[in-house]
Amino acid sequence: MKSIITQLFIALVIVFSPALVMAAGKLDQADIERAAELRDKALKSDLAYDILESLTTEVGPRMAGTEGDKRAVKWAKNKFKQLGFDKVWTEPVTFPSWDRGVEQAEIISPFPQKVIVTALGNSVGTGNEGVRGEIAHFKTFEDLQAAERGAVGGKIVFISHKMKKTRDGRSYGKAVAARSRGASVAGEKGAKAIVIRSIGTDHDRLPHTGNMGYAEGVRKIPAAALSNPDADLLLNQLKRGSVEFGLTLTSSPGELLTTYNVIGEITGRESPEEVVVIGGHLDSWDLGTGAVDDGAGVAITMAAAKLISEGKRPRRTIRVVLWGNEEQGLWGAKAYAKAHKDEMDKHITGAESDFGAGLIWSFDWTSVNENEPLIDQMAQLLKPLGVKKGNPKATSGPDLWPLRGLGMSTFALRQDGTDYFDLHHTANDTLDKVNPEHLKQNVAVYSVFAYAVAEVTGDFGRGIKY
Amino acid sequence: MKSIITQLFIALVIVFSPALVMAAGKLDQADIERAAELRDKALKSDLAYDILESLTTEVGPRMAGTEGDKRAVKWAKNKFKQLGFDKVWTEPVTFPSWDRGVEQAEIISPFPQKVIVTALGNSVGTGNEGVRGEIAHFKTFEDLQAAERGAVGGKIVFISHKMKKTRDGRSYGKAVAARSRGASVAGEKGAKAIVIRSIGTDHDRLPHTGNMGYAEGVRKIPAAALSNPDADLLLNQLKRGSVEFGLTLTSSPGELLTTYNVIGEITGRESPEEVVVIGGHLDSWDLGTGAVDDGAGVAITMAAAKLISEGKRPRRTIRVVLWGNEEQGLWGAKAYAKAHKDEMDKHITGAESDFGAGLIWSFDWTSVNENEPLIDQMAQLLKPLGVKKGNPKATSGPDLWPLRGLGMSTFALRQDGTDYFDLHHTANDTLDKVNPEHLKQNVAVYSVFAYAVAEVTGDFGRGIKY
Repeated sequence: MKSIITQLFIALVIVFSPALVMAAGKLDQADIERAAELRDKALKSDLAYDILESLTTEVGPRMAGTEGDKRAVKWAKNKFKQLGFDKVWTEPVTFPSWDRGVEQAEIISPFPQKVIVTALGNSVGTGNEGVRGEIAHFKTFEDLQAAERGAVGGKIVFISHKMKKTRDGRSYGKAVAARSRGASVAGEKGAKAIVIRSIGTDHDRLPHTGNMGYAEGVRKIPAAALSNPDADLLLNQLKRGSVEFGLTLTSSPGELLTTYNVIGEITGRESPEEVVVIGGHLDSWDLGTGAVDDGAGVAITMAAAKLISEGKRPRRTIRVVLWGNEEQGLWGAKAYAKAHKDEMDKHITGAESDFGAGLIWSFDWTSVNENEPLIDQMAQLLKPLGVKKGNPKATSGPDLWPLRGLGMSTFALRQDGTDYFDLHHTANDTLDKVNPEHLKQNVAVYSVFAYAVAEVTGDFGRGIKY
Repeated sequence: MKSIITQLFIALVIVFSPALVMAAGKLDQADIERAAELRDKALKSDLAYDILESLTTEVGPRMAGTEGDKRAVKWAKNKFKQLGFDKVWTEPVTFPSWDRGVEQAEIISPFPQKVIVTALGNSVGTGNEGVRGEIAHFKTFEDLQAAERGAVGGKIVFISHKMKKTRDGRSYGKAVAARSRGASVAGEKGAKAIVIRSIGTDHDRLPHTGNMGYAEGVRKIPAAALSNPDADLLLNQLKRGSVEFGLTLTSSPGELLTTYNVIGEITGRESPEEVVVIGGHLDSWDLGTGAVDDGAGVAITMAAAKLISEGKRPRRTIRVVLWGNEEQGLWGAKAYAKAHKDEMDKHITGAESDFGAGLIWSFDWTSVNENEPLIDQMAQLLKPLGVKKGNPKATSGPDLWPLRGLGMSTFALRQDGTDYFDLHHTANDTLDKVNPEHLKQNVAVYSVFAYAVAEVTGDFGRGIKY
């Protein structure tokens, strides 16, 4: 039988040796009380809304590479400092820039009407003279894939797939192929251009932009999104026969530019080298003021870390990363992963808020043990906020994908996204769309989550596959 | 005691002598059954929606004086003919035209952001170079009226009054002074320009246009509306201090042009010279496709008259007037009143549908006798449609104002306008905003109304004052 001293020694080694990659432990009663206090304080705090109001008012649109983006980086550094974060710094993010230019479209015949379009991010232009051609209509991206060259060649492809509202946003995955890959498939079959029904669930004359790409070796054709009412109009004209369409985009690729991930830390009191990563992306598309995508994520996570910092520092460091240039291809996320790839054993876990500001209704996790006691403790703490325990197959916000690729565990604090795609990537993404009470609930959830995973001992595992 | 023959003679004189201007009589049982049949048929008919789909798809925006307006006039004549109206003709409407031109605005300082504006109808332009100036903010039109010259002179006035949602639209009356008269008051006090928060109840980045005027002898200054989220943004910047604003409008007055009232009649079987006037206005603003304002009114009243015509013609003529250029100053209505002023004794009564396509919830009337038996019969017929009997102080759609001025009685079939000012005069006024079931209910109400007043004997009075 081992002596009590030996047992204590073994216990101490296990507790204080992160290299062992052991399952996360439990919060003690004082920690639980502290987490509950944080939760209740967050529900009364206007801080996130104030941060969001500041970002949208003082910066506004901040597409990577624009003046707005530069101001956003400056704003973020100042805001972290004002909020008293322990460390604030930036890390460079280099990316190929893109300029939107003019965007105009019209139905030329049978019944001339102007229609409202926006260029898809990364699209080539049409030249000032525009392109015109007969519409080749496909109901879905898959129908376009299945089409003969003869049905597409020399025409302007139109994909009319209508995205459905879902709480968890799963309909986006299906709809978005038309945007991201439509031009490649249409271009390969000889189309002149492609216009898609907006990847959005609203009925507003405000088209949804968003990133697209060109497959290697395929002729690059211009790509745009019609507002949803304009897509309806085009369909109604197509019911009457052939439609001649005109599109002018002067969008163009720009030079290689540098923006920044802006990072603020609340340094851990016992294991400062161990990091919990939260955050949102700092850039937005250029059409709106990026309140929902992703000013909300910026505000929620900055506010949560600030509220935690007002008490005793947690054991580990909470690192708020405001990712640069998410929208045009996760450039900030990739730069961070590259710069920190050798520190992955110190990246304990993380969560990104990048799905608006709807109420969080569930949380998922990844872990070496599906039945972590900590998970149940978190579930108890989050229950009064209407958040239920989900499953151990957490996805994550897109900026954590590269870190997950390097093996980092993630949590998904799942927001209600029913209305998210009404606004996503449109001019309508403005401050008035954010419900201040919902924002508070998000901060409460992030506060509990970040505090718990930063305070608890042990680990959540590495390289989880599912 | 008079003989039965004498009594019958007197009764006949009363019944068949419209010149007596006697109070309206009653529908007989067969008429009531016919009206109920019409109502129930209308509830199953897609006709109004089909008309509206045709107008918005084949014509679209149709601001008076534009190519769209010309196409609308042609469309309306053809549609009346296709629907088998007994007589179809046009009457000329001359008006001073206006061109929208370019519309751009920005907050220059403290935090530069582009904002979304639209020129108010009839506004002068700023010149290509635009105007810039400090914002002089007033919460209401009345605050601007009360302001000293020194608080306004050389500045750009901003009125931030927020319109509230109401079912009956009464909040419009209060809000609209900023739009219609703001420029005159601001100009008189030496302002460079005026921008107002949109007269609308939505949260979309789609500003509301609408007509404005200049008081005699006052310097004309440019006038525009900000979208509501942009007005919020401007207010948030103003909370931080002085704001420098830039506005460029190239709007300008155009030449004197002619459009048309397009008129279709279902000729009365007994008193064809006696006319019941229904209709909506054919023109729209240029930003949307005018589905709600006022394609719906066009479709509802054309469909109602067509459904009535499928049975025995009513006693009197039903005249559907599709008014030309309502938006820029009731030009069609004034032209009609002028052309028909000597026929007012034959204009029995009327109603205009120009408040969207929401469910009708009440009806008001004007009459020589507040307790017309007919009113109660109509109330019974309309009850299953959710329409209640209102009061004898009917207002009317704007195109009937000149005829009311000449003494004509009107009915008001009151639509639910709760959402009407979300769309009114914006690019968002498109077909998808119209609920096809609500449109059917409107047609049912108009069918009962038009049939009843065209079938009944007697009159509704003249020159009613209230």
